[in-house]
Amino acid sequence: MTNFHYDHDTIAPKPFHMKEPGIGSEKIIRRKRDGELEYQPDDLTIEEPLEIRIGGESLATTMRTPGHDDELAAGFLVSEAIVRERKEIAAISETRENIVVVELAAGVKLKLGSAKRFGTISSSCGICGKNSIAAIRQNFPPIATAQNERIEIETLLSLPALLQKQQGEFARTGGIHAAGVFDLKGEPKIVREDIGRHNAVDKVIGRAFLDGFVPLDRHVLLVSGRASFEIMQKALSAGIPIVASVSAPSTLAMNFARESNQTLVGFLRPPSFNAYSHIERVKLD
Amino acid sequence: MTNFHYDHDTIAPKPFHMKEPGIGSEKIIRRKRDGELEYQPDDLTIEEPLEIRIGGESLATTMRTPGHDDELAAGFLVSEAIVRERKEIAAISETRENIVVVELAAGVKLKLGSAKRFGTISSSCGICGKNSIAAIRQNFPPIATAQNERIEIETLLSLPALLQKQQGEFARTGGIHAAGVFDLKGEPKIVREDIGRHNAVDKVIGRAFLDGFVPLDRHVLLVSGRASFEIMQKALSAGIPIVASVSAPSTLAMNFARESNQTLVGFLRPPSFNAYSHIERVKLD
Repeated sequence: MTNFHYDHDTIAPKPFHMKEPGIGSEKIIRRKRDGELEYQPDDLTIEEPLEIRIGGESLATTMRTPGHDDELAAGFLVSEAIVRERKEIAAISETRENIVVVELAAGVKLKLGSAKRFGTISSSCGICGKNSIAAIRQNFPPIATAQNERIEIETLLSLPALLQKQQGEFARTGGIHAAGVFDLKGEPKIVREDIGRHNAVDKVIGRAFLDGFVPLDRHVLLVSGRASFEIMQKALSAGIPIVASVSAPSTLAMNFARESNQTLVGFLRPPSFNAYSHIERVKLD
Repeated sequence: MTNFHYDHDTIAPKPFHMKEPGIGSEKIIRRKRDGELEYQPDDLTIEEPLEIRIGGESLATTMRTPGHDDELAAGFLVSEAIVRERKEIAAISETRENIVVVELAAGVKLKLGSAKRFGTISSSCGICGKNSIAAIRQNFPPIATAQNERIEIETLLSLPALLQKQQGEFARTGGIHAAGVFDLKGEPKIVREDIGRHNAVDKVIGRAFLDGFVPLDRHVLLVSGRASFEIMQKALSAGIPIVASVSAPSTLAMNFARESNQTLVGFLRPPSFNAYSHIERVKLD
């Protein structure tokens, strides 16, 4: 039994963890470029279900890469607006393999309204489990304009290489997504990888939340995949003002970013990028 | 009001549709390679929520690219094991924007057991909405070994280029996934694109199901993204014996394929590929 126990009052924030093994190796048949067949070991990203429980209640099951399951659970609860403050979570423990149990603090009640809104359950994909269009938006407040923190253009352009560097060996399976939180100087703070892009973001936000660093109002979120509506909403749940993606955003992600006062940068492929909203946070000079 | 009405007894299968517009255009700021900033139009993949209802009941909401919503709904019901035979669906209609209503045939009851199993709702991501690990597997029967249809290695290698050709203009947004069903001669039968890879597969399977072509026991499914557990299970729900991905599979996808007697090919990047299970369906000569 692995325990991840947090006592927010007495324990200092843990150091940032970068990654841990999430790779399975298996013998497969490879056809090489010359047409020859080879029986050889191959590295695959591990995908396994994780059931998230609050106390005795099953809340959600998501397909994820094992590791940092406490963070995944915490990030999920934050972005689903089930918890808003660090002190609302008393403990997170992994009682059995692939099951993580969140204990809410004494006196904190599970908001059954919001939990029921996505059925008894959902996944970490942000939208899944909502049973009507009206229930999609969590109605987090927009980023405050007063906190209009800005980033140097050269710093922004440096982020993809920094994320890739943090990914290390893990990226070699070719089946993994990464998400990273950086400060406005470009310092990587938390980098997580997962087979699901939403899970990677949940893990990053969950780690920050558990360590008392939410809202991340002076930070940038970089994702290795596309920027969808759900990614923007998860970032907003953690108060992140700038989101960058190395790939494409969707129409809804752009519209949501514009409404939420979030800066959205897409196709961040130095020296180029696209700014879809609130470019005023990027120092262009 | 758009109506997609199917009368399986009297109407011949519709011709295969290839694609339709799912692109939004918007003025954005682009930083060019030389550092210059330009205010220019950009094409984005449209992402909007779709609510799937059965009769008056809301079943699921998924973020998808509009178009072929009837197919998405049908494919979702097939891969969630809510319907198994074409005649169980009487009609699919789009009563309001972003809401699609499935009418089950007279006498066909919504299997509340399975619907409740994923809460009142789920998304088209296959796993989402399941509230326990045991509920993930739909327990579709494995591919029958007697139907051991085989594909020429050169045909297999030709598929990625064929898929890309069918994608056409739509692929230029960079934010779209594609899925295609091909016969064993490499003839493209149905190609669909969507911001979500599971949606693209649901649309392909839904089209085939509505036209009475399920089980697709003499076909190959090619996906532009990674092969996860859910993709393999969706393919199995339609009886597809061979699944190929241009990218990486997960450990669970491989294990599921081996158990389900499905051929799983990954990193299909001619002239190379990896075979993760049941390579006997690929004629290696």
